[in-house]
Amino acid sequence: MIKDIIFEKGEHKYLQLYNQLKNKILNGTLRYNDKMPTIRQMAQILNLNSVTIVKAYELLEKEGYIIKKVGSGCYVSMDIKQNHNSYKIKKDGVYRLDNANPSLDIFPIEDFKKAINIAMEKEGANIFSYDEEYGISELKNEMVAYLGGSGINAKPENIVIISGAQQGIDIVSKALINYSDIVYVEEPSYPGALDILKSRGARIVSIPMLRDGMDIGILKMKLEKTRPKLIYVMPNFQNPTGISYSENKKKKLLELAEQYDFYILEDDFISDFKFLEDDVKTLKSYDTNNRVIYIKSFSKILMPGLRVGVMSIPSELKKRIVLSKNNSDISTSTLIQMSLYYYMNQFNWKNHISFVEKIYTQRYKECREYIYKKLGDKFEIIENNGGINFFIGLRRGYISREFCEYMNKKNVILLPGDMFNDNKIDDRYFRLNIATEEVERIKEAIDIIAYSVDDFYKKNYER
Amino acid sequence: MIKDIIFEKGEHKYLQLYNQLKNKILNGTLRYNDKMPTIRQMAQILNLNSVTIVKAYELLEKEGYIIKKVGSGCYVSMDIKQNHNSYKIKKDGVYRLDNANPSLDIFPIEDFKKAINIAMEKEGANIFSYDEEYGISELKNEMVAYLGGSGINAKPENIVIISGAQQGIDIVSKALINYSDIVYVEEPSYPGALDILKSRGARIVSIPMLRDGMDIGILKMKLEKTRPKLIYVMPNFQNPTGISYSENKKKKLLELAEQYDFYILEDDFISDFKFLEDDVKTLKSYDTNNRVIYIKSFSKILMPGLRVGVMSIPSELKKRIVLSKNNSDISTSTLIQMSLYYYMNQFNWKNHISFVEKIYTQRYKECREYIYKKLGDKFEIIENNGGINFFIGLRRGYISREFCEYMNKKNVILLPGDMFNDNKIDDRYFRLNIATEEVERIKEAIDIIAYSVDDFYKKNYER
Repeated sequence: MIKDIIFEKGEHKYLQLYNQLKNKILNGTLRYNDKMPTIRQMAQILNLNSVTIVKAYELLEKEGYIIKKVGSGCYVSMDIKQNHNSYKIKKDGVYRLDNANPSLDIFPIEDFKKAINIAMEKEGANIFSYDEEYGISELKNEMVAYLGGSGINAKPENIVIISGAQQGIDIVSKALINYSDIVYVEEPSYPGALDILKSRGARIVSIPMLRDGMDIGILKMKLEKTRPKLIYVMPNFQNPTGISYSENKKKKLLELAEQYDFYILEDDFISDFKFLEDDVKTLKSYDTNNRVIYIKSFSKILMPGLRVGVMSIPSELKKRIVLSKNNSDISTSTLIQMSLYYYMNQFNWKNHISFVEKIYTQRYKECREYIYKKLGDKFEIIENNGGINFFIGLRRGYISREFCEYMNKKNVILLPGDMFNDNKIDDRYFRLNIATEEVERIKEAIDIIAYSVDDFYKKNYER
Repeated sequence: MIKDIIFEKGEHKYLQLYNQLKNKILNGTLRYNDKMPTIRQMAQILNLNSVTIVKAYELLEKEGYIIKKVGSGCYVSMDIKQNHNSYKIKKDGVYRLDNANPSLDIFPIEDFKKAINIAMEKEGANIFSYDEEYGISELKNEMVAYLGGSGINAKPENIVIISGAQQGIDIVSKALINYSDIVYVEEPSYPGALDILKSRGARIVSIPMLRDGMDIGILKMKLEKTRPKLIYVMPNFQNPTGISYSENKKKKLLELAEQYDFYILEDDFISDFKFLEDDVKTLKSYDTNNRVIYIKSFSKILMPGLRVGVMSIPSELKKRIVLSKNNSDISTSTLIQMSLYYYMNQFNWKNHISFVEKIYTQRYKECREYIYKKLGDKFEIIENNGGINFFIGLRRGYISREFCEYMNKKNVILLPGDMFNDNKIDDRYFRLNIATEEVERIKEAIDIIAYSVDDFYKKNYER
């Protein structure tokens, strides 16, 4: 059960031990209520100093994976079955490679619950009152510090707390986009943004993505013809391609914003993690001319169902954006804001981030390797350096929606590329998401894709 | 301290005692940590059976106003100063008759906190996951029962849980209104709705309000010319006038919706309470042809900062409305939904409603009486039978915005009527809201209005 634990050079052994034990709990090798080996047993089997074991166990206990029972030893305390979603998924036997929501087990559920209790105790009835400042000031200050850590030089008055990144896109659209205004987007791009922009009556202009970001040549050409009010981009680990912009392209985009006078809406969901990328700087961190409206999601780095996010906005847009926020839902729940504040302020938020980063990076590396190995010669895989998505193309002439329906029947759920372009045009690419399922199951699904595609290619003659 | 407690015929004495003691706590006559008279003292002074006192004290304890300390007696446990807002208001000395948010002291803060804890315990990590059904099913079922109580015959599949009523208006607008569509509204109406509709590019047609609801004659005339997609109404205790539609007008409006083929958006924030009205039936309860999109706010009857509300919608609009909800904020916080479910399910929600109804009704009656007495001969008061607003007109020829600015300098904050019409046209009416301040302070403010207006009339010659 623990004999397969191995140690590499570099990282502290207790951390390596902690990670491997945690994985065993998460993948079900160690189950709820299983007794953990004693410190002494563990030290003997793995030939480790007992202090190392103690430290690893302490971490596991702090994160809620195991519990110490006095006089009886340590037991696994996390019931991975408690996660309703992952349970359901297993029961159905369906591989959810469409879903971008990370499984909840990696998040600091217990700490966050404590933070909620602290908020309820310390803030009394206030947690049920309206927040009239578009973000309670304690949380805004915390966000200033947090964004500062990724090079964004925000002031509290530029911070707006929102009910999730989706709402951020919605309120920016409401604030800036009127019927028949022009908006540029990446192609492919996030459907939830395209829908909103179109619902505002915006005219969408799509700029193709290259390996290092938007095609700047085409962008310039289009800018000469029609000027947009806004360009919507995801500069790091873009959805659905996973592509990150080069530093050069980030700077170029900002120059063009100045030259052609438009705003950039930056949608950032995962630049906290580097994966294999050197540069995960946000566009906002380069933004000296207040061209960037920055939206940060916490759905992938904290909890999807919290429904909270943050924006850093140019001062001259403040009035418009807060009016639009007010018209959308008055304010974000004070209870949620206060709880997030106490969580960030009193718990080890940075530790959590680096903990999740490790999980994501490991997951990304394993899946990437397996995807290239199994699918490399049958598909065109869009290269990226991280994230939670792979954008994968069928051979020319085949339509991904047909392939996705074909795979659907085999219980592997993928998203067809047509969802990610403005006009829902047929497309040979599909998105494979690795956030929800466990790595072993993702590999199983990749196997199914690999052996199914030959048949699909045969049955669906090239058009 | 308690000698002024008096009893009227009709209602149970323990309830009367409870209400009067509670008011003493809320208005500061009995303060935090004050010792309450013993049962025996109380019974002697008021000449009551001690069982009556016990019952009143039990209720007070249950609602969190007092606490029993073993061997020492009962103490006031509610610190009204804990309410940050009301404290601030007092300190500033400003009379907030603009604000429609009830002071938090009337809400079941402690019970709701318990409900949050129950949700955290029972639901584990799920409270942090997305809700993918536009309302968790437990809460939807609870809402079906709750709406059933006010005559609305909804099924769970017609229920959409939203992040407050404001979001309801927003998502209905997104779902139904495209650029240049026609929408009818009441004149005056709620600015938060007008803003959203205009932001969608809707062409607004305003129908004047009469004493018993929209002017049906003018409505018909307009319908003959241009047909709306939607009519936005508040049939009970309308904002800002406080007017309720007669049963006849409610039915007439539904007939016209059928005849001219439009939907009605019903915005209901306080029909749970009757005030002096006989008929507080919702439009939705008469809606046999699925013409009404019903939005229910909990901001005035539960907690303003919760950010949760409910809609009951015609089936044929489901897809459009849930897409629009999804585009707005994906889903409403599962934590909040679960907590509300446990609150409604495990605590005495109906008791709370009737408790708050009493407070509101008492407040309404007192303010109404005082307004007619002090302002009756200097203003035109739009008659209504309940709610939290009075719409009050200056003499013809005077502009309410000027009067509001004038009163603002005297620390009485009112809202000018131009805010409530589509084109922000000058108007002689202003809105006086009675939800936020304590009754005694509202009376003080009314006194100030009464003696200031003569001067205002003198200084501002009729135009």
